[in-house]
Amino acid sequence: MSKEFVIALDGMGGDQGPSMVVQGAAIARKRFPNVRFKIFGDSAKIQPLLDKKNALKEITSVIHTDDIITNEMKPALALRSGRQSSMRKAIDAVKAGEADCVVSAGNTGALMAMAKFVFKTLPGIDRPAIASFFPTLRGETVMLDLGANLQCDAQNLVQFAVMGDVFARGVLGVQSPTVGLLNVGSEDMKGHDDLREAAVILRQSDVPLNFHGFVEGDDICAGTVDVVVTDGFTGNVALKTAEGTARLTSEFLRQSFKHSLMAKLGYVFARPALNKLRARMDPRKYNGAMFLGLNGICVKSHGGTDAKGFSHAIAAAADMVHQDILSDIKQDYARIAETLSSVDDTLTVTKQV
Amino acid sequence: MSKEFVIALDGMGGDQGPSMVVQGAAIARKRFPNVRFKIFGDSAKIQPLLDKKNALKEITSVIHTDDIITNEMKPALALRSGRQSSMRKAIDAVKAGEADCVVSAGNTGALMAMAKFVFKTLPGIDRPAIASFFPTLRGETVMLDLGANLQCDAQNLVQFAVMGDVFARGVLGVQSPTVGLLNVGSEDMKGHDDLREAAVILRQSDVPLNFHGFVEGDDICAGTVDVVVTDGFTGNVALKTAEGTARLTSEFLRQSFKHSLMAKLGYVFARPALNKLRARMDPRKYNGAMFLGLNGICVKSHGGTDAKGFSHAIAAAADMVHQDILSDIKQDYARIAETLSSVDDTLTVTKQV
Repeated sequence: MSKEFVIALDGMGGDQGPSMVVQGAAIARKRFPNVRFKIFGDSAKIQPLLDKKNALKEITSVIHTDDIITNEMKPALALRSGRQSSMRKAIDAVKAGEADCVVSAGNTGALMAMAKFVFKTLPGIDRPAIASFFPTLRGETVMLDLGANLQCDAQNLVQFAVMGDVFARGVLGVQSPTVGLLNVGSEDMKGHDDLREAAVILRQSDVPLNFHGFVEGDDICAGTVDVVVTDGFTGNVALKTAEGTARLTSEFLRQSFKHSLMAKLGYVFARPALNKLRARMDPRKYNGAMFLGLNGICVKSHGGTDAKGFSHAIAAAADMVHQDILSDIKQDYARIAETLSSVDDTLTVTKQV
Repeated sequence: MSKEFVIALDGMGGDQGPSMVVQGAAIARKRFPNVRFKIFGDSAKIQPLLDKKNALKEITSVIHTDDIITNEMKPALALRSGRQSSMRKAIDAVKAGEADCVVSAGNTGALMAMAKFVFKTLPGIDRPAIASFFPTLRGETVMLDLGANLQCDAQNLVQFAVMGDVFARGVLGVQSPTVGLLNVGSEDMKGHDDLREAAVILRQSDVPLNFHGFVEGDDICAGTVDVVVTDGFTGNVALKTAEGTARLTSEFLRQSFKHSLMAKLGYVFARPALNKLRARMDPRKYNGAMFLGLNGICVKSHGGTDAKGFSHAIAAAADMVHQDILSDIKQDYARIAETLSSVDDTLTVTKQV
């Protein structure tokens, strides 16, 4: 934790824009004493906000950019015409070695397209994936992909499994993470062809990965496995369904305590416990989706979050830098990719026979 | 509600088997005074249970069967070799006009295969779908498909939309239900080809359906639309993810109240409110997945539920019988199918041009 490191921030992303970014950086600064920030965006908006925060101002430089990537912009257009945008400049800074990682609360598709274009994928990885933590009954679980790839073949899923495995070891500190493929049942015959083929590959004894098998939707929050692997469509729906259900439960809980005088009195006594629950379920704590499989660290913050939420996305990026996750992933992936390609050859041979 | 009606029950389905079925029927009997039951299964197990319940015994006949469909049995095998099973006989009773609907807590795939084989699909419907209610911030929402069809094309999704629309009007009593397609974003360009094509068809002005557009995972529990349409893979994962998240929240809540003496005291005062919440979120209340698109009423109970949960599945079937949902669906579907086929023709022509 002693080495100084630099985080590039897209100052213009997110519903609350620069104020959330500056305030979020101010919160994150307290947790990471050796951090420095480069904030990219409209300096006329960012600098005045920064001027109010002396401690943050000392460790932050503002790099003015005129362009902004809007939420509506298609990734291809953003890639073509957004070269001078705050988002792109923040990514470029990492590529140029001027920052260690980048955090943005802007347009997810554009961020992924730009990060992929600038950083490139790691050797052996066809497509990057978006990963995030889920709170579970048994700690935290990593799930990927959460929306980068809507349709995935068996090879993509296998690569995600490897990325998730390496990531869980590095960031969660789990020695031999269990990896599950999300499906509609746990039996071998369940699911579509790509899922079953991915399971066959992951079950090969020489793939150095603790493959649990298929898991179902309720296994995510049960914490049945450390890593849940799925395609980006299913992962995105599952993530948002979980968020929606948590919101519904909170709202029902709130309504329960308004129901009667007795219930209102109950609320007064129950408040400490309820606050504890709220803190534990706080979605801001889980803000920060990590782009895995790229040769660079990029974290996407939820666009609708606030400064506290954004500070968690910064923390997720900082943790990846500190633990040198990228080197781990590169090394581990190279090792596993070698085995995988030989497994592939075996499978191809078996199929031909 | 005055007409007498008969419910065929698979006496051998579910983890708790006959005891859950008999006890569930006893609970449901109180809500539906004109119901009669036919329970299919091992009479040596069912009859003694029934003998203890005088009121239920009077309105119930037991039809002995030797065979059982196990949970592990593949649908094709169940269809071939399970003709004498309790599940099949219960379905056959509906087909023969000896019962108005069938309820089973057994093997979902086998039940769907048998029900489809015996009842056949309604004219114009290629594949049946599994539908269920979700609690939401704005009442209840119907979601389908929850697992009958893992991969769906645009036509399947459009048919599900129509089935869901008719069902919501009949059972939820909503005049012009809003229908949404589950996707990873609400913008037109989001999602894969089949989803976008289904949206194009549903948006045609002459399709008599209140199409809202795309919805996301968190819209399910928000109650953004009355009917959420999706493929069986995504629907199954979303359903189970929601169940798992609700379970996680309850467990976190329970732990919060154990944390300190103050919290334990708080629990005493908060108990009425918490009991109210528990009742509202009780998954047993939402037990009973309806098979839609078949020329017969079949409801699947969760296999792991208890008697109270099973009674809710019976109630779901009874509601469908009472409201003559099947006639409504047949009529409405015939009307809509006609429009749809002309829309299809238009689309085909447009594509050719």
